[in-house]
Amino acid sequence: MKGLMTDPIEIKVLDHGFVRFIDRMGSDQRIVEAARVSYGSPSKGDEADKKLLGYLLKNKHTSPFEMCKITFNIRMPIFVMRQFVRHRMQNLNEVSARYTELPDVFYVPDQWRKQDTKNKQGSQVDDQLNGPYLSGVLADAYRQTYKTYQHLLDRGVAKEMARFILPVGIYTEIYSTWDLNNLLKYFVLRDDAHAQWEHQQFAKAMKEITRMVFPWTMELYDTHLDPARKLS
Amino acid sequence: MKGLMTDPIEIKVLDHGFVRFIDRMGSDQRIVEAARVSYGSPSKGDEADKKLLGYLLKNKHTSPFEMCKITFNIRMPIFVMRQFVRHRMQNLNEVSARYTELPDVFYVPDQWRKQDTKNKQGSQVDDQLNGPYLSGVLADAYRQTYKTYQHLLDRGVAKEMARFILPVGIYTEIYSTWDLNNLLKYFVLRDDAHAQWEHQQFAKAMKEITRMVFPWTMELYDTHLDPARKLS
Amino acid sequence: MKGLMTDPIEIKVLDHGFVRFIDRMGSDQRIVEAARVSYGSPSKGDEADKKLLGYLLKNKHTSPFEMCKITFNIRMPIFVMRQFVRHRMQNLNEVSARYTELPDVFYVPDQWRKQDTKNKQGSQVDDQLNGPYLSGVLADAYRQTYKTYQHLLDRGVAKEMARFILPVGIYTEIYSTWDLNNLLKYFVLRDDAHAQWEHQQFAKAMKEITRMVFPWTMELYDTHLDPARKLS
Amino acid sequence: MKGLMTDPIEIKVLDHGFVRFIDRMGSDQRIVEAARVSYGSPSKGDEADKKLLGYLLKNKHTSPFEMCKITFNIRMPIFVMRQFVRHRMQNLNEVSARYTELPDVFYVPDQWRKQDTKNKQGSQVDDQLNGPYLSGVLADAYRQTYKTYQHLLDRGVAKEMARFILPVGIYTEIYSTWDLNNLLKYFVLRDDAHAQWEHQQFAKAMKEITRMVFPWTMELYDTHLDPARKLS
Repeated sequence: MKGLMTDPIEIKVLDHGFVRFIDRMGSDQRIVEAARVSYGSPSKGDEADKKLLGYLLKNKHTSPFEMCKITFNIRMPIFVMRQFVRHRMQNLNEVSARYTELPDVFYVPDQWRKQDTKNKQGSQVDDQLNGPYLSGVLADAYRQTYKTYQHLLDRGVAKEMARFILPVGIYTEIYSTWDLNNLLKYFVLRDDAHAQWEHQQFAKAMKEITRMVFPWTMELYDTHLDPARKLS
Repeated sequence: MKGLMTDPIEIKVLDHGFVRFIDRMGSDQRIVEAARVSYGSPSKGDEADKKLLGYLLKNKHTSPFEMCKITFNIRMPIFVMRQFVRHRMQNLNEVSARYTELPDVFYVPDQWRKQDTKNKQGSQVDDQLNGPYLSGVLADAYRQTYKTYQHLLDRGVAKEMARFILPVGIYTEIYSTWDLNNLLKYFVLRDDAHAQWEHQQFAKAMKEITRMVFPWTMELYDTHLDPARKLS
Repeated sequence: MKGLMTDPIEIKVLDHGFVRFIDRMGSDQRIVEAARVSYGSPSKGDEADKKLLGYLLKNKHTSPFEMCKITFNIRMPIFVMRQFVRHRMQNLNEVSARYTELPDVFYVPDQWRKQDTKNKQGSQVDDQLNGPYLSGVLADAYRQTYKTYQHLLDRGVAKEMARFILPVGIYTEIYSTWDLNNLLKYFVLRDDAHAQWEHQQFAKAMKEITRMVFPWTMELYDTHLDPARKLS
Repeated sequence: MKGLMTDPIEIKVLDHGFVRFIDRMGSDQRIVEAARVSYGSPSKGDEADKKLLGYLLKNKHTSPFEMCKITFNIRMPIFVMRQFVRHRMQNLNEVSARYTELPDVFYVPDQWRKQDTKNKQGSQVDDQLNGPYLSGVLADAYRQTYKTYQHLLDRGVAKEMARFILPVGIYTEIYSTWDLNNLLKYFVLRDDAHAQWEHQQFAKAMKEITRMVFPWTMELYDTHLDPARKLS
């Protein structure tokens, strides 16, 4: 993890989003150390430590995993954020549109999806949808709303009111801190085929960064918790 | 509290919002009973019970207040909802725009405010703003976004994608359950002059309903916790 | 649920413990109503409502279940309480041994267990243990500690200090309120063969009362969540 | 903070307890950075940063403080632990007495207190209490319970049952992780004259370590939040 500050880990998501690694506390080893409540005791070797980690995960001894933390800086559309914030066990700070003028950055999809015929909440890619046309319609409509936003601001309207017209496709930015137990639960729910596709992409980027920091735990996640494992 | 089902308590908020009382658990008496951990013991009389309630509130013995619950059904604009959801200690269920087409209901203010010169996050009413003109601009812009929403749906786009263009001024609807301790903390933060004016109106309506159900506690709130008490 | 106050539901647990039903909010129907965010809409019939309830539970749409609450009054030994309190999503009020003199009520088991040879945390019944002898030893030791407690109090020592000598086998009493989502998660963890046997008995009693109040949900629990279902 | 691993920060508390610093995430600067949601932006200088920190604290903008974390390893008596665990917003892992035999380490006070005449929950030092005598009585009683514990273990009783006789004056050991917002709230409640004196000593030790890691925040705590500030 050397050199992080000069060369930050950042994964691009969607057209203008990103997930950046900001900081971490603890490690796979810390989980084992916390489970043993034994500060400073020498590790019992990688094999024994990994075995204990697996035992903890499989038997839902979740509290030692909460000794590990990770902070992300994320730029995501508001419609993703509105789902993201429902995961109550994170710590969250969001840019305030009462205080800051939001920049002109909107999400336009590459590929369009129609309503899913089986999962009434979901969607599926459909080549019969005229993607370029739909993207044009959306981009135009975004542009109009942003013009109105600017117009209201120019007329002296407070930021907290001018924003009424901003669509949920606009990007917002957050700092988000998780403990590893609740982060795994988040992955189970949002890196899942039933979650909105756009949200899945953020979950996948967070997962990739988490894997760099807690490789043993994420290996266990793949084997025992990942909803996709049942399909393969 | 008789007859609630046939004659529901509902307070109108803003132009199209409301706060409805759905249910409650417990009472001012229950708090006292929980503090005494003494089921079935006869009340020690209103005076003694009220005195204990005051002692608990003033000395931050908050856990007995968590034995009381209240459920609201609220219709509020998304920009209020985005603040509301940050209060993590409530239970919340929101209508899903992945599953349901949102109706054409938007918030247009009666009165417009300019940026506050002292509180950089806030705003203040300014008669020099041309209210009717600004409301017209906003309403037109809302209409355009809703047309685009309908157009995307007509073209077969999934609801979860068509909504990208919907502005945060559109109304959403929730069920929200609170324990009385955390509800009082919410009132302190949102029925406060620093909160966005629109959000304050929802907090005030929730307060009014809470007062009907837990009158002794709300009397103590007025005297000891209400941020406005210091001004008068 | 008529007549609760005059004829309280109470289940005896262990030698001196109990779980009493105090109150509830909501019903199986409320969950469906909250999921539809549709106040006052007529039920779509028991069959349709039950089907939706099953869909919600199986697809982890947990938030509507949090609209339902249940409050218990429980008397349990401190060693059970120390595990119980770790379930953070409940609301909890406990009798204070700083303020109240704890009564002379201790847990003496009917049956003794030796350390489990497979599960290093668990135990198993062993007929070779001399139960009556062990129970006598334990009861004598409890009596000595309570004598010391009384002696310290007689000497004028504050309650919060005299209690230092009280063993974790003494009974304490609480009020405990749960939402139905987190209560089901609790049942999964504590009405499970890996949980301490004494704790399981309290979970079972809570389950029985919950079943009276939320029968449809508990039927779904039996089929889809109960850890014991895999064994049969 | 260099050299922590070779020279750990540890503060002795009571007769056999301690608070050890294990790890931290973030700094006073991180709070400011999170509030600005501006990764990599140069600090605006210590003075501007400190001013913003003060603004956040005084105006209850608590979420940026939750980006900072601190982990302690603590050995405390069970009667303190039973209060400590009620602070739900920490992450906690405790040594399991189902799995581990607890060592023979008990709390014997230096000074004895009688029941407070004003605060019915509290106590006050009283020189008329015969301290050496009381400490002798307590130590003897502890010794008897530990003998019984050993005797039950020798007879083959499972650890989770043998512990029934262990008094709440015995020491336990935990790992405990806090975000800085909730840690400050904890200090307000437990580094307060109304909290049990023994618990206050742990809060003070945690405060001292927190001060080394987050000096600006703790300076603000002293000025604006510390319950003792009103007295001086």
